[in-house]
Amino acid sequence: MEKRPLILITNDDGIGSKGIIHLARIAATLGDVVVVAPDAAQSGKSSAITANTPLYVNAHSPIADNIRMFSTSGTPVDCVKLAMFAVLDRRPDLLLSGINHGSNAGVNNIYSGTMGAAMEGCTIGIPSIGYSLLSHASDADFSPLTPFIADITARVLSEGLPEGICLNVNFPDGCTPLGMKVVRAARSHWTEEYATYATPHGDSFYWLTGKLHNDEPDNPETDEYWLKRQYGTIVPIRPDQSATDALGAVSSIVSKSQS
Amino acid sequence: MEKRPLILITNDDGIGSKGIIHLARIAATLGDVVVVAPDAAQSGKSSAITANTPLYVNAHSPIADNIRMFSTSGTPVDCVKLAMFAVLDRRPDLLLSGINHGSNAGVNNIYSGTMGAAMEGCTIGIPSIGYSLLSHASDADFSPLTPFIADITARVLSEGLPEGICLNVNFPDGCTPLGMKVVRAARSHWTEEYATYATPHGDSFYWLTGKLHNDEPDNPETDEYWLKRQYGTIVPIRPDQSATDALGAVSSIVSKSQS
Repeated sequence: MEKRPLILITNDDGIGSKGIIHLARIAATLGDVVVVAPDAAQSGKSSAITANTPLYVNAHSPIADNIRMFSTSGTPVDCVKLAMFAVLDRRPDLLLSGINHGSNAGVNNIYSGTMGAAMEGCTIGIPSIGYSLLSHASDADFSPLTPFIADITARVLSEGLPEGICLNVNFPDGCTPLGMKVVRAARSHWTEEYATYATPHGDSFYWLTGKLHNDEPDNPETDEYWLKRQYGTIVPIRPDQSATDALGAVSSIVSKSQS
Repeated sequence: MEKRPLILITNDDGIGSKGIIHLARIAATLGDVVVVAPDAAQSGKSSAITANTPLYVNAHSPIADNIRMFSTSGTPVDCVKLAMFAVLDRRPDLLLSGINHGSNAGVNNIYSGTMGAAMEGCTIGIPSIGYSLLSHASDADFSPLTPFIADITARVLSEGLPEGICLNVNFPDGCTPLGMKVVRAARSHWTEEYATYATPHGDSFYWLTGKLHNDEPDNPETDEYWLKRQYGTIVPIRPDQSATDALGAVSSIVSKSQS
């Protein structure tokens, strides 16, 4: 008898978040699920790895017959590495990350722990998808997303993804998406980035804040454009950032340095 | 009178490392230097940002008339953001990150705090370069790199870089590079990733280790190939990981999800 697909799930909001439980329950309709997630929030951790402190893995009670649960003391990428090394007894057919509480559209992909985990899966050849909802609320309503996530997940489980590519999927908040658009990330950057405080001794300290500035708000080729119009977005992501199309331009700039 | 160029320098090994001081002294021959670096080692921090704890900036004594020194309690990307927000009084003409004690070739770009900082500079439109030496030794010999770094830095300061592109520059250890090659990162991944220990209570814990597996060791289009042959390598890096060439393939996989 053929084995059911094995689906590894992680996130960056931690194992106690509502989004990962929602995702695990959707995935459990398609295969056997193992959740290996951070024991606490790890937002903004990008592809960070823990090189200089030891890491722990703790087993939790399963939340269903086919949803096993583990937490680790590491980052989202550590969770993927530890799952492969110390938790799973066979290679997963799919890696899902999320559902993140908050947007990973635009430039956010590079800071996202959700996408760090998806890119790690991609790097070792596992079809990988990060899912995010544009709401930071801990009690966000993920239910309108269910049929979309079930459909995308089933298709990738069945068809795979192009080599070296994973998916960054974002959903608008507070509505049923009008549909899904396959687009690229909007060129964007963060501005006005810190709140400033003074210690009781008069020294300054800083807390990250800021606004996402979209450099191309009217461009329908981008994720931010469609998210504002109540569509979900699917951005193909290539973890390898080598810009092969810029080799010539860079060569001419540094030419005297070349042999 | 025209102002001298302003060069912002950071790293992921911390403000006390030998590599950043070496880089600051090279850069000081080309402009005025401000170092804003982590107060302790932040290796493997990728593009991680600190969202949920406050951050501090401390002024250190300058190490030369035109090399001002600051440390922060944050990650390499936090250092760039805090430099722009709280330290610099004008926009830098160039951002340099490193010299990293250790390789950032191949897949390492996505885990690298050195490159996280360079990509942050790129994202806000500052020509940015990460420099790394293939030695983790705290007393590594950076002197053979000096003319190469001076030349590449001067050229980028003068010519700029293509929009959306920064550079990941790696040098072989223990020799004067035979030259520089402009190439892409080798497709590679880490294997055998943890040392396993037992606590006094018999529970397991894990420490990151592992080996870089190069998937294409004989390919002269890649950085790993040339680094093994005593050349330095320059990889153009695009922080935006949107894979626009995969939009069609992904659309056909998820087609029924699209409106």
